[in-house]
Amino acid sequence: MSFDRNQHSHRRYNPLAGRWVLVSPQRSQRPWQGQTESPDTAVRPSHDPSCYLCAGNTRINGEKNPDYTGTFVFENDFAALMADVPAPDGLGADANGGLFQAMPARGTSRVICFSPDHSRSLPELDDAALRGVVDMWCEQTEELGQRWRWVQVFENKGAMMGCSNPHPHGQIWACDFMPELPNREDQQQRDWLQQRGEPMLLALAHAEAQHGERVVVQNDDWLAIVPYWAEWPFETLLLPRFAVQRLPQLTAQQRQNLALAVRELTTRYDNLFQCSFPYSMGWHGAPTGAEGLQGAGTAGDPNAHWQLHAHFHPPLLRSATVRKFMVGFELLAESQRDLTPEQAAARLREQSTVHYRQR
Amino acid sequence: MSFDRNQHSHRRYNPLAGRWVLVSPQRSQRPWQGQTESPDTAVRPSHDPSCYLCAGNTRINGEKNPDYTGTFVFENDFAALMADVPAPDGLGADANGGLFQAMPARGTSRVICFSPDHSRSLPELDDAALRGVVDMWCEQTEELGQRWRWVQVFENKGAMMGCSNPHPHGQIWACDFMPELPNREDQQQRDWLQQRGEPMLLALAHAEAQHGERVVVQNDDWLAIVPYWAEWPFETLLLPRFAVQRLPQLTAQQRQNLALAVRELTTRYDNLFQCSFPYSMGWHGAPTGAEGLQGAGTAGDPNAHWQLHAHFHPPLLRSATVRKFMVGFELLAESQRDLTPEQAAARLREQSTVHYRQR
Ligand SMILES: O=P(O)(O)O[C@H]1O[C@H](CO)[C@@H](O)[C@H](O)[C@H]1O
Ligand SMILES: O=P(O)(O)O[C@H]1O[C@H](CO)[C@@H](O)[C@H](O)[C@H]1O
Repeated sequence: MSFDRNQHSHRRYNPLAGRWVLVSPQRSQRPWQGQTESPDTAVRPSHDPSCYLCAGNTRINGEKNPDYTGTFVFENDFAALMADVPAPDGLGADANGGLFQAMPARGTSRVICFSPDHSRSLPELDDAALRGVVDMWCEQTEELGQRWRWVQVFENKGAMMGCSNPHPHGQIWACDFMPELPNREDQQQRDWLQQRGEPMLLALAHAEAQHGERVVVQNDDWLAIVPYWAEWPFETLLLPRFAVQRLPQLTAQQRQNLALAVRELTTRYDNLFQCSFPYSMGWHGAPTGAEGLQGAGTAGDPNAHWQLHAHFHPPLLRSATVRKFMVGFELLAESQRDLTPEQAAARLREQSTVHYRQR
Repeated sequence: MSFDRNQHSHRRYNPLAGRWVLVSPQRSQRPWQGQTESPDTAVRPSHDPSCYLCAGNTRINGEKNPDYTGTFVFENDFAALMADVPAPDGLGADANGGLFQAMPARGTSRVICFSPDHSRSLPELDDAALRGVVDMWCEQTEELGQRWRWVQVFENKGAMMGCSNPHPHGQIWACDFMPELPNREDQQQRDWLQQRGEPMLLALAHAEAQHGERVVVQNDDWLAIVPYWAEWPFETLLLPRFAVQRLPQLTAQQRQNLALAVRELTTRYDNLFQCSFPYSMGWHGAPTGAEGLQGAGTAGDPNAHWQLHAHFHPPLLRSATVRKFMVGFELLAESQRDLTPEQAAARLREQSTVHYRQR
């Protein structure tokens, strides 16, 4: 019997996060009798008087949104991170015999509205509006990066992903520490550059573009792939095809092409199951703050190992109503997937680049 | 301003998994307008003719279940792991320039029915039946551990946790590799013993029992705590108060007390929101298989750093209908919790030890 990756379980390694994932492609044949979700296929008005993100409306805390026309950014009314909090007691690895270690966590948290139009998610925005979102991601990272060590730009899309308002929006949480996953990616990329002389994700973009099998979107500057080590069924990694470490460095042309790549990717997602496709997406770039930005752009840049990239983590597995549950074995032992990344990429490539609602 | 752990965000360190978690207790004050879940408050028949796990019924693959009276174990009809699969191509850290590494994954997967009674989950089983479940966990680990390096006993409870059948049951996935999280726990515990001369989780059980603030269940042999570094709102860790590495080593008395501890913990869980409380739970013990069992029980036991324990990961946050979403920042950066572990433990301690349906 010879190995058939569509039939035989195996493990794949994620060099960016430094962890393995179990691939069990034969599992996609099992019948599903569990929980089903309500897909989001609603047609919404352009302005919803009860939405606290629409232009001109009043938020829970009584503040009134401006009559914004492009993007709109404000401080989260229920922030998970605040700039001025005292340090906890019991700090350090040896406090309490090492069992109960704490450290300070300071930061800020913003809501970023993509458009005043309540009815349009990213793939449905026009060119100028989508470009405005890209510029806003860059500007916010620039501004918050002056002060904070890590700026996490992200979007939770869809009720299934804990999003409580369908108005097109994302969030930014900035903090004075390197969070777990970015810290891991920092180490892994640093080791890679040291050992192999080339940034990991630049090598990956070249290899994937050449290979083609896992590519979903490709233009002059950007590539979206289902990574070889994807955990979520239709997870993708959005990669620049040129060396770049942080969002603010992108040129006008690269931003333009990024807007196109985001539109194409999210359109393919929506078309896959003919619904507003839920996901959590977010940007990872080189650390910021005084410590992170030191030496940036110089020959000896201590963050030369970093490549900017975005992760898309969508929960759906079989249809608009059947999701992947990351539970049990996944929570206790190791992530497991039910179709191969190559199968997922092929499914996404089959989709039209015209949004199903605009046909 | 002095530090108030109920008001001020901070990070806590999980020495078992080797990772940090962000605690933002002030977040529990925000209003929730997002997705709500259907709580499981159904009263079910003792036998459901359409259930594929009930005694005497026929499964999807045509096999007939025996008329079992205690527990019942069978091979999963749609196993994620199989014993005889060929090795993938492109193995090893240097294949394909290190970008695309794979390795074999072999194993087996079983379904474990806790009781023929379709209507009773763990807290509702009588003493003998619950003891039967504990014995079955031990026996299965013993048997599968002869061959497999890792035996993952777990239960996904509730539709919210991807469980497709309310019949009380769990699963076992056994495999020929150390999965990610157990592997991490293995390293962390090994380092701890080397550096501090005592197994980490034995030190923890002693410290927590003495301290009391995070204790939820306590008897002569067992302790259930909300760990200092819990990620899920009501996550608990079930710990032995004596040195033990694997389930099969438990004495009759320790098994008896384990059954009582499991009943008390799951009863408190169900009582918290007056519903069948969803969770994923599972056992972690020292590695098995020929390699893992080598030297077991001898003075120089290479797994002396291991302590047997169970994790409970329940998704609910505020009520039977409002869950915690591990999305966005959590998926992309770091786990974040909205109430302190101490608050969660106090809430669970307040609950009656008599199940709300039996009052
Ligand atoms: O095997 P089941 O119960 O059908 O499936 C459930 O548990 C598995 C193991 O935790 C997960 O991989 C699945 O996503 C989940 O739906
Ligand atoms: O801030 P929101 O949108 O209310 O909350 C959502 O996103 C947060 C950041 O990813 C998560 O911590 C919450 O669990 C989720 O419900």
